[in-house]
Amino acid sequence: MVRIKVIGAGGYGGVGIVELLVRHPNAQIAGLYDIAEIGKPFSALYPHLRGFCDMEILDVAREGESEPADVAFLATPDGVGQQLAPKLVARGTRVIDYSGDFRFNTPEDYREYATRIGRNPEHGAAQLLTESVYGLTELYRDRIGRARVVGNPGCFAVSLILGFAPALKASLLVLDSLIADSKTGVSGAGKTPRPQFHYPAQYDNMFAYKVGVHQHMVEIEQQLSRVAGRRLALTFTPQVVPICRGILSCLYGTLRRDATLDEILQVYRDFYRGAHFVRVLDKGVAGQNSAVRGSNFCDLWINVDAQTRRLIVISHIDNLMKGQAGSALQNMNVMFGLDETAGLDRPGIYP
Amino acid sequence: MVRIKVIGAGGYGGVGIVELLVRHPNAQIAGLYDIAEIGKPFSALYPHLRGFCDMEILDVAREGESEPADVAFLATPDGVGQQLAPKLVARGTRVIDYSGDFRFNTPEDYREYATRIGRNPEHGAAQLLTESVYGLTELYRDRIGRARVVGNPGCFAVSLILGFAPALKASLLVLDSLIADSKTGVSGAGKTPRPQFHYPAQYDNMFAYKVGVHQHMVEIEQQLSRVAGRRLALTFTPQVVPICRGILSCLYGTLRRDATLDEILQVYRDFYRGAHFVRVLDKGVAGQNSAVRGSNFCDLWINVDAQTRRLIVISHIDNLMKGQAGSALQNMNVMFGLDETAGLDRPGIYP
Amino acid sequence: MVRIKVIGAGGYGGVGIVELLVRHPNAQIAGLYDIAEIGKPFSALYPHLRGFCDMEILDVAREGESEPADVAFLATPDGVGQQLAPKLVARGTRVIDYSGDFRFNTPEDYREYATRIGRNPEHGAAQLLTESVYGLTELYRDRIGRARVVGNPGCFAVSLILGFAPALKASLLVLDSLIADSKTGVSGAGKTPRPQFHYPAQYDNMFAYKVGVHQHMVEIEQQLSRVAGRRLALTFTPQVVPICRGILSCLYGTLRRDATLDEILQVYRDFYRGAHFVRVLDKGVAGQNSAVRGSNFCDLWINVDAQTRRLIVISHIDNLMKGQAGSALQNMNVMFGLDETAGLDRPGIYP
Amino acid sequence: MVRIKVIGAGGYGGVGIVELLVRHPNAQIAGLYDIAEIGKPFSALYPHLRGFCDMEILDVAREGESEPADVAFLATPDGVGQQLAPKLVARGTRVIDYSGDFRFNTPEDYREYATRIGRNPEHGAAQLLTESVYGLTELYRDRIGRARVVGNPGCFAVSLILGFAPALKASLLVLDSLIADSKTGVSGAGKTPRPQFHYPAQYDNMFAYKVGVHQHMVEIEQQLSRVAGRRLALTFTPQVVPICRGILSCLYGTLRRDATLDEILQVYRDFYRGAHFVRVLDKGVAGQNSAVRGSNFCDLWINVDAQTRRLIVISHIDNLMKGQAGSALQNMNVMFGLDETAGLDRPGIYP
Repeated sequence: MVRIKVIGAGGYGGVGIVELLVRHPNAQIAGLYDIAEIGKPFSALYPHLRGFCDMEILDVAREGESEPADVAFLATPDGVGQQLAPKLVARGTRVIDYSGDFRFNTPEDYREYATRIGRNPEHGAAQLLTESVYGLTELYRDRIGRARVVGNPGCFAVSLILGFAPALKASLLVLDSLIADSKTGVSGAGKTPRPQFHYPAQYDNMFAYKVGVHQHMVEIEQQLSRVAGRRLALTFTPQVVPICRGILSCLYGTLRRDATLDEILQVYRDFYRGAHFVRVLDKGVAGQNSAVRGSNFCDLWINVDAQTRRLIVISHIDNLMKGQAGSALQNMNVMFGLDETAGLDRPGIYP
Repeated sequence: MVRIKVIGAGGYGGVGIVELLVRHPNAQIAGLYDIAEIGKPFSALYPHLRGFCDMEILDVAREGESEPADVAFLATPDGVGQQLAPKLVARGTRVIDYSGDFRFNTPEDYREYATRIGRNPEHGAAQLLTESVYGLTELYRDRIGRARVVGNPGCFAVSLILGFAPALKASLLVLDSLIADSKTGVSGAGKTPRPQFHYPAQYDNMFAYKVGVHQHMVEIEQQLSRVAGRRLALTFTPQVVPICRGILSCLYGTLRRDATLDEILQVYRDFYRGAHFVRVLDKGVAGQNSAVRGSNFCDLWINVDAQTRRLIVISHIDNLMKGQAGSALQNMNVMFGLDETAGLDRPGIYP
Repeated sequence: MVRIKVIGAGGYGGVGIVELLVRHPNAQIAGLYDIAEIGKPFSALYPHLRGFCDMEILDVAREGESEPADVAFLATPDGVGQQLAPKLVARGTRVIDYSGDFRFNTPEDYREYATRIGRNPEHGAAQLLTESVYGLTELYRDRIGRARVVGNPGCFAVSLILGFAPALKASLLVLDSLIADSKTGVSGAGKTPRPQFHYPAQYDNMFAYKVGVHQHMVEIEQQLSRVAGRRLALTFTPQVVPICRGILSCLYGTLRRDATLDEILQVYRDFYRGAHFVRVLDKGVAGQNSAVRGSNFCDLWINVDAQTRRLIVISHIDNLMKGQAGSALQNMNVMFGLDETAGLDRPGIYP
Repeated sequence: MVRIKVIGAGGYGGVGIVELLVRHPNAQIAGLYDIAEIGKPFSALYPHLRGFCDMEILDVAREGESEPADVAFLATPDGVGQQLAPKLVARGTRVIDYSGDFRFNTPEDYREYATRIGRNPEHGAAQLLTESVYGLTELYRDRIGRARVVGNPGCFAVSLILGFAPALKASLLVLDSLIADSKTGVSGAGKTPRPQFHYPAQYDNMFAYKVGVHQHMVEIEQQLSRVAGRRLALTFTPQVVPICRGILSCLYGTLRRDATLDEILQVYRDFYRGAHFVRVLDKGVAGQNSAVRGSNFCDLWINVDAQTRRLIVISHIDNLMKGQAGSALQNMNVMFGLDETAGLDRPGIYP
């Protein structure tokens, strides 16, 4: 049994991993920690877990007083992971951090990100940063297996990187032609109520935001540049639609040469051979949010617009699963030598 | 392994049970049958099941050509079960029927129902009708265990009977005072598109329908009368709200005598002792749809309005789980001596 | 032109009246006041009003420095109206208050309400309280016409009183049999974000709250008692469903004698003769939220459950229109001798 | 008073124009026609119009027996307009057709469209086709004023053309770089229920469709080519999101030269000088669906992605207003010398 602590358990990132862990065959929750709601049973916050997880929420400040766990999920905002990780690692606990704290491998790369989000550009645990691994399992499975610290990717980043990577790896695309137009469900903004996400404001509403300046762009461009073998920049337009769970990204890139849909499908299928959670849809099959909602799958629907010689990849994930807790658990499975699908091998529910 | 056929697999009742069966430790789907979409992979209809259930849908007319299963779920409309059940039972297959065909034990009771819904009042399999058992596990667990034919209850019926039964059993209520005001999600109306359930028509809309004349009233009044030991009638107002899954029923009854909330809570807890899927909420804890959505639980929130001496029970279920496929699977588990919670012991997902 | 100030303009009650006033043939907005967002154009808060109302929001503390208006809408919480009204009235401004501050005619009645909501039971403007009029136009049209201070009714109160009043007036109902089961859209809770109304929490969710203890019960029971000519109490169960605008109330009462649907329809039609905004639906016509949404109408769908001899009135309003700003404007029209429908004579939009 | 007939009144296009006409100061509905629901009061189909429009629906086959109207709105599918228009025009009735029948000025252009949608490539009223005018008021105001037949534009076309036209006119964009990523509400698909738009299927779902092959592309490319003065092609990805009303399009184009946001804003403002219904948002102001929903406005939010030298225009309309009935009425106003905003000068409702 892998013994697990969840830090920042009270938010959507926390409940997402707890929901999965209570049904995981090889996992045992050793403690749920947060800075608020301390002493309350977890199921008081999340009544659908009544009987499944009634553990009390513990004060994160006192985490060190209990036995160290095998792994800690840090479902915490930017800045927290770099404070907590050194202590956890020192006591033998491996770390999977949800924030941007460990998504970059060098202080320079982190600096670019931190500046973008208005934080201190100096990383608080630079040594761990260097050894940390970017937690997109499909790209870094082997290194994740050995990692002490994994930086779980941003939800948009998962959606975009999985969709663009095979074409870039195969040098199919004109590098300065990339555009990503992403629609996210509201849960991606987390649990804290905000005026724009108040039900009466958000129902039947949609809007773009942070056009061209979203903080996930830093990791997306870094990762895609690495795949492409050359520095690239892309245009990214995130949008919110009245959906709870899901990201639909339309990914555009100009083909460097005429390539048939069949060829490109083959490139994608080869790239994701053995990747259980990425489904490259067959020709003639369209994607939709409800096919991935509640599950850890990423569905990729590949299109070629012959008239304009563009590749259009429609990428679907559940932002709280493959976009967050699902990827985190997939990483944990890899880190502890378990079946990669353990606790994740379930469909969503429909309708 | 229990070998299972699902007949009428293409509708919401079908996909509901298939979703559960693919994760059930002791179940094996032997065949999916319908009268339409024959030859298509099930996952072409329900793409979230891609990789989980890609079996082809078979023609129900040819069901008899394959090996008989241990049990058949008939997710079929009124009238079909009474035609199919005799043949299935004759070949040793036990039957769980979702329609009203086997919810009544006598031809007279069935006649009342059939008349209400405008069908032939003569039952097509009267002999099986007599031995069939009403499939509300919490009321008829033992008889269900031995049954060859189970009539799975209507979704509203589950919601109302579980909410009213303990108080009626304990003779707490004035019998002619019962009112049930039920709000259902749209999935309760099934998969067939209809003008009133078209997204633009149904979003931000709500309405009552069949006020005082809903067909589920027949089984509700018969079952509650049996529990109360006296014939009773109730007022029932079903309503549709823009929700996919869920029934919230407000159940009103005048108390025959002053009774404290604590006393009544005790009555409910005693009644549901050992009933895993009914959760009588503690004093001070409110119910909500999201606590049961996606799960097989029924949450009962007991209130006493001292000023008017009324009992108000707020009953929450997921209409597609405890209200349909979940109850059906619970019945199957009981019929085959399995753990009653097998394949059902999971929370919903939130948010 | 009636010159109007709106105080508490920034909330849903404020935008509701501003939307109506910008299209009103006889109205002129003299000032929009609030305690926050001061100096911002109103259309910065509500961009759908860009070009229709770009006035700056003014500091309510400085309202007295400008010319008095003919009437002020106080879209403010409990307790504010009793502070502001005396000063406004002293300068010749008539007042329409949205809160509970002027819904009661005697200090004793107010005390009951104030105690219920945990406020100081002593009214801050007792003299005005005595002369104030309860602003349900259909009941008090004449007195409203002469009033200096009108207490605009609560949204649930409008829904219930309009639905019950004719039957009570005609002594059709057993007085201790009344039950009201009300479903409200989320906008009824106002503009302030709260955890339970966060989009991911509220979508596909529904719940009852304040069962039997909602603060609107005080005015409802007082008004209905007055209509019935005898003190009565009722059971009231408010619920929230994932709708933005609308209240659907199912109103139950036992008939004192057998009465046909036709007789009762006649009672309702007689009661609402000349009441433009109450539509008693014809026999065979069902109500629905989308028929009133965005409009000032109240649709009443009358049912008789012969089996249990109960009257079931399904009452539909838009909580932000007839339940708030629409009623307020209707009252203003009456107070200033305008056509009662001025600025209100429009359908909603559909779908 | 302009006397008006609406043909195809029963669908969303019909109710959209009727809603507007009942409040129009210079309009009078002379008859509502359809091929179904004949003899029913219009308000039986659309109960929110009870008291506003209770006219009976008439049989379109008998339209010729009544007095000709001044103008007819043909809210009918492709192919109907070309049959009806010649007869109407012959009797002096001007025509505003909602379908693709009159969106093209030459038989050749029409042939391209008809082929795309699988219809007879020969137009049934070629003479009228030649004189017909494309009904985007902002582009063809003068010609619309004189037109006998107007081809009202497709909803996506309005969204895209208004967003791209100023930049193309000013030669700001690389012509082969255009991409349009559009999200539409479900009402755009019309009133007929379909499986994918069934509430349980569509809630919390989103999907792309007709990627690169949507039929509106023909008119979009033709119109934009005309504006640009050179034949161009674009990539267009329509998507459906769980919204009732609204289109949000993200329009991408590479700038031919460095141009500042201020310069580009000026280009857009100059282009739309005097165009009441197009609002070019100020720098720093973001667009959102709720700002245009229920109104005839198009909000354009202009962005420049300096890093990739791309123009990103976010274009918002209500698909049933500026995208259909609102544009149609705007055209009618222009055709009859009325104030262009008559009957349209209202905000939506919020929330």
